[in-house]
Amino acid sequence: MCCLSTETLTASYQAYLDELTAAGLLIPSGVKGLYGHSGVFEGVIERFEQAVTRRAVSYKAEVMRFPAIMSRQTYLKTSHIENFPDLMGSVQSFMGNERDHARLLQKRHQGDDWTRDLEPTEVMMTPAACYPLYPTATGTLPEGGRIVDLRSFVFRHEPSVDPCRMQIFRQREFVRLGTAEEAVIHRDHWLEVGEEVLNSVGLNVERVVANDPFFGRGGRMMAATQKEQILKYELVIGVATTEKPTAITSCNCHLDHFGHAFDIKTADGGYAHSACIGFGLERIALALFKTHGFDPDQWPASVKNVLAL
Amino acid sequence: MCCLSTETLTASYQAYLDELTAAGLLIPSGVKGLYGHSGVFEGVIERFEQAVTRRAVSYKAEVMRFPAIMSRQTYLKTSHIENFPDLMGSVQSFMGNERDHARLLQKRHQGDDWTRDLEPTEVMMTPAACYPLYPTATGTLPEGGRIVDLRSFVFRHEPSVDPCRMQIFRQREFVRLGTAEEAVIHRDHWLEVGEEVLNSVGLNVERVVANDPFFGRGGRMMAATQKEQILKYELVIGVATTEKPTAITSCNCHLDHFGHAFDIKTADGGYAHSACIGFGLERIALALFKTHGFDPDQWPASVKNVLAL
Repeated sequence: MCCLSTETLTASYQAYLDELTAAGLLIPSGVKGLYGHSGVFEGVIERFEQAVTRRAVSYKAEVMRFPAIMSRQTYLKTSHIENFPDLMGSVQSFMGNERDHARLLQKRHQGDDWTRDLEPTEVMMTPAACYPLYPTATGTLPEGGRIVDLRSFVFRHEPSVDPCRMQIFRQREFVRLGTAEEAVIHRDHWLEVGEEVLNSVGLNVERVVANDPFFGRGGRMMAATQKEQILKYELVIGVATTEKPTAITSCNCHLDHFGHAFDIKTADGGYAHSACIGFGLERIALALFKTHGFDPDQWPASVKNVLAL
Repeated sequence: MCCLSTETLTASYQAYLDELTAAGLLIPSGVKGLYGHSGVFEGVIERFEQAVTRRAVSYKAEVMRFPAIMSRQTYLKTSHIENFPDLMGSVQSFMGNERDHARLLQKRHQGDDWTRDLEPTEVMMTPAACYPLYPTATGTLPEGGRIVDLRSFVFRHEPSVDPCRMQIFRQREFVRLGTAEEAVIHRDHWLEVGEEVLNSVGLNVERVVANDPFFGRGGRMMAATQKEQILKYELVIGVATTEKPTAITSCNCHLDHFGHAFDIKTADGGYAHSACIGFGLERIALALFKTHGFDPDQWPASVKNVLAL
């Protein structure tokens, strides 16, 4: 799919990033993949989300909003530490007395690693918008299962010059909890709806079978299995470069992975299956700016209409 | 101001928290001070924010939105690690190879502290919405300074049963960068505007001179000085209990603290002063639910009108 050299790719990423920061849409922080956003950038995300909300109204999804940090204990019930350790964010804090504090400051002053004096808190950065949902669903689902509407900032430690690869970004998700069949139907249906919504704002995405970035050699096998079982689709489009498309939305079946991990059962007593669509909101905004230009006032009338701009 | 015993206070906090979770407005995570929010809770925050935005339109503030994590290097240019080390959140991640990973998992399996194997990332949790702004303002301000409209999730490691004391919450801020006089005028003006907006939604706040929770014995002196210089006002109201009011908004002068730390100068060459108003959005929502009840449809017409409910 991509025949570009790493250098050429990096140059494309850097070029688009430079344009975005020159236009004031992204505000550099000095850290790769971490930006402030302008009001215009935020406005586009807000309007796109509202379009999704309008499209989803008939599903009567339960709305839940979780923050960018989650319970460490819940985190450890998932297999994230096994499968994606390199992406995790553990939140640590200072829990000592004044003498300990003086030592911490001295270490810092001497250029030593003062973070060694911190202790793990009860929380981790949230790796995916749906993780905090599962422990709240432990037990037996109602007949017909549940559909939940989530949005969360999520964290991935993968510093990059690709403006699409942020360390913290928002996922808007519609998660299905239910039987295996209900989960697959949800995934496949929302794959269509996702395509339709993205097409309606002028993003001509392509559907591809995909895999998660599992860690290490063992992870390569898991990725191959995931792809073989066709558990994950991505909707991709060229953003910084048309040569290497970027996933801006994904639709996933988790089988009964979370049902087992969090003891979620269906009304008929089996372990619940789950599936979700996740809209990558910052990436969708970046794709919109790339496709239609940096001034939303000048976007095509049909797109402005869908976004109520 | 408060003559309640700790036990009585804790009981009040727990009682209101139980009501909020029973009503589904807050969704417990198993961690003190960390919750999911229902759609109704989020809707109230959204509508209150829109009321603030409408009230602020004439100031033509620059809109900037920073995420819940910020550059570690920027963090260390502030004096947060000196003054509030117990509230900090350092984000650490796994940066090893597969062998290191196996060791990490083994530690975890044995119940050892696996977080010792993590490394500090380039980021910290954002302690206050305005911190990420300052490095972007290094240099000379335009004539007349700047007014910036910020909103951010911020982190404070202070686990508590008080529903108002969340570990992660949103601050909506209007920050002034300019001369000493411009900063004080902004603070005092927005103290009035803040009161007016809160009153308009039926929150009869009281204005009190306040101080930040500086760490340790040295911190007690700093707090006393801050209070003596009347740098910080809080707008307080009874939430879980009327006996001990809670700050739901604060208005602060930072003198030239950030101007020095980030080398921000005014047009006439002096170090810039700064000041801000910060609306505590979750606390305002909690105060609204306490004052008007859990069903926004039943709120007084005048409040619903301001909030366009």
